[in-house]
Amino acid sequence: MEITLKKGGGVTCSPAERHGSAHSLSVYTTKRLNETGFPKEGEARSSFSSPKQIIFDVVASMSVVGKSANIFWQECPVRKLDRQKLLKQKGCVIWITGLSGSGKSTLACTLDRDLHSRGKLAYVLDGDNLRHGLNKDLGFSAEDRAENIRRVGEVAKLFADAGLICIASLISPYRKDRDSCRAILPDLSFIEVFMNMPLDLCEARDPKGLYKLARAGKIKGFTGIDDPYEPPLNCEIEIQQENGVCPSPCAMAGQVVGYLEEKGFLRE
Amino acid sequence: MEITLKKGGGVTCSPAERHGSAHSLSVYTTKRLNETGFPKEGEARSSFSSPKQIIFDVVASMSVVGKSANIFWQECPVRKLDRQKLLKQKGCVIWITGLSGSGKSTLACTLDRDLHSRGKLAYVLDGDNLRHGLNKDLGFSAEDRAENIRRVGEVAKLFADAGLICIASLISPYRKDRDSCRAILPDLSFIEVFMNMPLDLCEARDPKGLYKLARAGKIKGFTGIDDPYEPPLNCEIEIQQENGVCPSPCAMAGQVVGYLEEKGFLRE
Repeated sequence: MEITLKKGGGVTCSPAERHGSAHSLSVYTTKRLNETGFPKEGEARSSFSSPKQIIFDVVASMSVVGKSANIFWQECPVRKLDRQKLLKQKGCVIWITGLSGSGKSTLACTLDRDLHSRGKLAYVLDGDNLRHGLNKDLGFSAEDRAENIRRVGEVAKLFADAGLICIASLISPYRKDRDSCRAILPDLSFIEVFMNMPLDLCEARDPKGLYKLARAGKIKGFTGIDDPYEPPLNCEIEIQQENGVCPSPCAMAGQVVGYLEEKGFLRE
Repeated sequence: MEITLKKGGGVTCSPAERHGSAHSLSVYTTKRLNETGFPKEGEARSSFSSPKQIIFDVVASMSVVGKSANIFWQECPVRKLDRQKLLKQKGCVIWITGLSGSGKSTLACTLDRDLHSRGKLAYVLDGDNLRHGLNKDLGFSAEDRAENIRRVGEVAKLFADAGLICIASLISPYRKDRDSCRAILPDLSFIEVFMNMPLDLCEARDPKGLYKLARAGKIKGFTGIDDPYEPPLNCEIEIQQENGVCPSPCAMAGQVVGYLEEKGFLRE
């Protein structure tokens, strides 16, 4: 049996061991674990055997996470696969990144409508909209931007787990923040879409009048003007001009839908 | 035309005005608004008329929200009603509150399975599980508890908006935190379920061994022991013992499903 002992004494058993129920090992019985060679503090992963046939119950997946101790993981009987079967699709996250004015919202909305017309359940997480609710306590400092993206990534993960095609639309300028969101999603279900439009085009569009304000010095730390945008290195989909012409909203959405079809996300 | 001017100069127009497009009024043109009698700071709601026939575009719903300025509200063409039609159900939040050990998770999982077996799309937001992800930066101080519940409420609202039956399972001991979550949900779609089980029963069950730790002083501020639980005053559903006997998980879930059926949440 493989178990992980985390700082403070949290104990989790590997999923394979999460069946049967006989004995729940409290986080405070680490003394027993110490006798088998585990450290009292810090983190260790090791094989574990006991002549006493200790079987971990589901509730034994207690852990110390971030600032929280005494946290259990609750498994529910309806799983992602069950919901996907009901919806006849696979949950995933379409993460649309790019400069302000690059067409993220246009793609998000067109894609949403396109998927809906095919009978698929999608939902748009718009960075600006979330700042009216979930993220209203956050500003635009580097730290707050990172936390903003972290939270959207966590929520997107929940939506994908619920079986939805979650369309997240955020500038998300820093590679490491996007990569952190990718890292928490299961393999291949994080689909990064890079709106690769030239800055001068985005600035000429300026649909929200923000570039003008940034150039006038009324907005500081504006992506593309006085704050960097780090393009993806290995995105799944890249949207760009062809011979100096931008693809239509339908063509952009079609490119994403084509990818989803090809990878099997639009069937169970 | 009714507009709201928020501290810092954010301008939102009322939904009824969100059509047509002619002129986008920037948050920075408040001088013009001042000329019509609006304060430069603070919040004001007032009727507004202009001889210049200013029509607010959708993107004019710019506002200053919390710490965020220059935030727009993005409307997507697929609306909650469209998703509900697809799912043949109405999005809502089942908010299960009660002491540790009162049966919240048991009800959440049983209800989830019951709804799934009827072909309905539900999703469980478990307070402990979210502390592994979205809320892993939060501890158990009064402030962190409130923020924990605020975030779950905001995410639950998104799920309901996506058309799902969102089952939130959290102790959520304070009335005002639960009421804040209710306040952000549209009318009647916040369904509070109170697990009204006696403390001594919960403590006798002690499925996670937490009461024992709290009594031993190893957990401080534990709800029901040295921190209060404020029961709902007007919850939609109350689960309690009958003649000293707890209802079975199926009976509890049945009580909630009955409510959902009666109120029309299980059809479009």
